[in-house]
Amino acid sequence: MDTRVKFLLREWSADRLAQVERALDAWVAEDAPAGLGDAMRYAVLDGGKRLRPLLVMAACEAVDGNAGAALRAACAVELIHAYSLVHDDMPCMDNDILRRGKPTVHVRFGQAQAMLAGDALQALAFELLTPEDASVPAATQAALCRLLARSAGYEGMAGGQAIDLASIGRALTEAELRRMHRLKTGALLQASVAMGAACGVADPAAVAALNGYGAALGLAFQVVDDILDMTADSATLGKTAGKDAANDKPTYVSLLGLEPSRVYAAQLLAEALGALDTSGLPAGRTEALRALAEMVVNRNK
Amino acid sequence: MDTRVKFLLREWSADRLAQVERALDAWVAEDAPAGLGDAMRYAVLDGGKRLRPLLVMAACEAVDGNAGAALRAACAVELIHAYSLVHDDMPCMDNDILRRGKPTVHVRFGQAQAMLAGDALQALAFELLTPEDASVPAATQAALCRLLARSAGYEGMAGGQAIDLASIGRALTEAELRRMHRLKTGALLQASVAMGAACGVADPAAVAALNGYGAALGLAFQVVDDILDMTADSATLGKTAGKDAANDKPTYVSLLGLEPSRVYAAQLLAEALGALDTSGLPAGRTEALRALAEMVVNRNK
Repeated sequence: MDTRVKFLLREWSADRLAQVERALDAWVAEDAPAGLGDAMRYAVLDGGKRLRPLLVMAACEAVDGNAGAALRAACAVELIHAYSLVHDDMPCMDNDILRRGKPTVHVRFGQAQAMLAGDALQALAFELLTPEDASVPAATQAALCRLLARSAGYEGMAGGQAIDLASIGRALTEAELRRMHRLKTGALLQASVAMGAACGVADPAAVAALNGYGAALGLAFQVVDDILDMTADSATLGKTAGKDAANDKPTYVSLLGLEPSRVYAAQLLAEALGALDTSGLPAGRTEALRALAEMVVNRNK
Repeated sequence: MDTRVKFLLREWSADRLAQVERALDAWVAEDAPAGLGDAMRYAVLDGGKRLRPLLVMAACEAVDGNAGAALRAACAVELIHAYSLVHDDMPCMDNDILRRGKPTVHVRFGQAQAMLAGDALQALAFELLTPEDASVPAATQAALCRLLARSAGYEGMAGGQAIDLASIGRALTEAELRRMHRLKTGALLQASVAMGAACGVADPAAVAALNGYGAALGLAFQVVDDILDMTADSATLGKTAGKDAANDKPTYVSLLGLEPSRVYAAQLLAEALGALDTSGLPAGRTEALRALAEMVVNRNK
């Protein structure tokens, strides 16, 4: 990627991130009763890479879709991601006290409020997708709810977490590990791309290509996550490093080794970029998706 | 209500309940990975009065709506109700070990799986509302998701639970207690009626009347719940009796006294039935809604 394109993409990211932060600040439940709003906002605002929202918006722009719908979808996906972190961090799951460099929600607000805040964030995601005004056509609202519900539920994120729970201390085959990660992390990342595409009208070949991009990127994300859990420190990550090994969880690094994991991540990046090449979408409109895939694989936190 | 109508309504209930049980059995996640499906099914199947599903179906029939959409909505509301019970029963919330006469989900499957099962049930509710086939029009799908998300989230059930948490050991005014209950229990009951109505096309006056019915019935339900918590035994209730007093939670009985609470429940029943009288809907089509309101107030568990 040449310097000029890199510069433009940095501007693109900064602009879209600012839109997402403003929208989340406006839409996340300031007036929720009895401290619930504080816990919800603490879980969502002021932190996170916002990778999923950027994927939604980049995919929407690739198909020249409805930007207002994409902003809602971007925030909805981020709320699902945020709620999953709140619940994951709780003592009965990963029992983690540090997230995005701050105390986790249950440490700050207590377990009961953390559980409720997670529950309410999931509901709010679907609320954001179904505005009463006509800004988002009903068919788009329904499609977005469908994609998000599937990727968050038992065939997606929650199912992956159940496999994760059941796999602690067990040796997984690579196929089992891949399935766990495809569900646990990959499903919501892939849904982010699909939801962005659903904000517009694209031909089936383009939608299939975007799905291929999303699947490869989703898995690449987790391979890199496993590498960083092993190689980075907690201060850089903003969360506890080395906890997979400490919890005896299977990872790509424990299964393949560090260097082969890096090679695999690079292969997945090539696969994601290759899918975009076959999409039939104008190259200029897929630049942000390309840049995001490179960012996912080359990040250091 | 005369004997003939009572008999017909018993048949009506039995038929609709059988539909709901069959649909839940078919739709709740048998193939979810790593024990998650077992926990989800345990939380939902073989138990519960199914009041919310019956309200959805009765309201749909009152407006002569789409029965297939109503069956999905009925199951979706029940999944939200079931997930809320699973999370409510956990040690960090009410710490209850008995529900519907059986060990609670976290007792049977562990806390982590219980939390995940609740999370996955919420997602599944929105999945049921958004089938990919054309059996439910997109506008209906979007309206159902909107109503359900709002009633489950921070302005509804989750918000009410946050007030509940914050109110333990505090004296509430009647207005505060009413707000808590309207959110915590009332919102989802009212949404059940509204979702049933959204499966058809009714004039705004009928929709407003159904909303009035749902609001009064929702509050009546909680007043009666408070009475039963004080007067019934655990074996009859299928859950721990007397736990509000044990947890020092404010209730209608603690605020108004037992007999005035009974009078208030009867007033709310009259209000619900009165709303149906003003709906402009044919009396024959609102009989099931009438019977359900009477059942809510006159139940013994």
